Amino acid sequence: MKSFYKELWFNISERMDFINITTDVEKCIEESGIKEGLCLVNAMHITASVFINDDESGLHKDYKRWLEELAPHAPLSRYDHNLTGEDNGDAHHKRQIMGREVVVAITEKRLHFGTWEQIFYGEFDGCRQKRVLVKIIGD
Amino acid sequence: MKSFYKELWFNISERMDFINITTDVEKCIEESGIKEGLCLVNAMHITASVFINDDESGLHKDYKRWLEELAPHAPLSRYDHNLTGEDNGDAHHKRQIMGREVVVAITEKRLHFGTWEQIFYGEFDGCRQKRVLVKIIGD
Amino acid sequence: MKSFYKELWFNISERMDFINITTDVEKCIEESGIKEGLCLVNAMHITASVFINDDESGLHKDYKRWLEELAPHAPLSRYDHNLTGEDNGDAHHKRQIMGREVVVAITEKRLHFGTWEQIFYGEFDGCRQKRVLVKIIGD
Repeated sequence: MKSFYKELWFNISERMDFINITTDVEKCIEESGIKEGLCLVNAMHITASVFINDDESGLHKDYKRWLEELAPHAPLSRYDHNLTGEDNGDAHHKRQIMGREVVVAITEKRLHFGTWEQIFYGEFDGCRQKRVLVKIIGD
Repeated sequence: MKSFYKELWFNISERMDFINITTDVEKCIEESGIKEGLCLVNAMHITASVFINDDESGLHKDYKRWLEELAPHAPLSRYDHNLTGEDNGDAHHKRQIMGREVVVAITEKRLHFGTWEQIFYGEFDGCRQKRVLVKIIGD
Repeated sequence: MKSFYKELWFNISERMDFINITTDVEKCIEESGIKEGLCLVNAMHITASVFINDDESGLHKDYKRWLEELAPHAPLSRYDHNLTGEDNGDAHHKRQIMGREVVVAITEKRLHFGTWEQIFYGEFDGCRQKRVLVKIIGD
């Protein structure tokens, strides 16, 4: 069994945004030399997500509006978590909706994906350096 | 290390419905010959889910009502995504609540499950051919 | 390839509560002797979650309030599932928001975690014995 990992760094200039990291993950798979296996991609921060969906700007706008409805940023007093001096209570909630991680199959050296599947890093408390882990095991 | 995959095809006749695919996954495990390992089951489409919960028709009715409240299908104008000509903006949201995938343990050739765990394919934009991937690695 | 599993038992004295199980998972990794691999941690019950977030009591209070808003326990008649004689319809919904499982990387014999990542068992229908599965594969 082989294993491989890489940490990817991001600094998103908005509080909330989504960026397509599919190509980064594909490069990791190539670098790993693994032909058949499983690839875990997870946010290493608890106010961010990794998820799979469509690379369509209208949908991303919809997601932002919807997440803001489900877990509004303001008023900050809405969240006991913000009593610690943080202002990211909402981000911890948004991340639970969108998820921490994805596990994807590698078949014949490639992401085993449907036509429209793309991997996104979802930031909910941006404007700082944050990491995503790619861990691959297989043969 | 051994690996195995199979793509399962479904065509659900409702816009939204849940079907129990536990037996399909069990057949894959048997076919794979893998005794100890991990099994990934994921929707290959971004308007569908794979999730684990109870096979109880009242609960499934509850889920449908709740998902419709959280992300209503109509009015279509609610979603910028629908400006692309699609009418499935809601389905992309419902899928995020229910999740893309499950990872399940295989122990002694069997799904290592609690008493009530069952695997479901969740369709949110049906009436078309769609795929689920089962990928297994182990020994 | 090596594999390892352990079932952890919990009996939470509240209907809804979150407990930090990171140390339990670390012990499993040590016991497994696996240096590089993937570790699945999942609830074996369908009214409970395993998730990764912050060990901060204010945040946990926020989560409880928020989950109660999204899927209230009462009135019981809100859920068709409760017509079966159960009173845990809400718990099946809360679990979908928080997720069934996490998959975490093991690198150099340790959880490959960001600074604030901690693993929680999330109970939504407590006051009874329930199990969490830890399954590890790797080398």
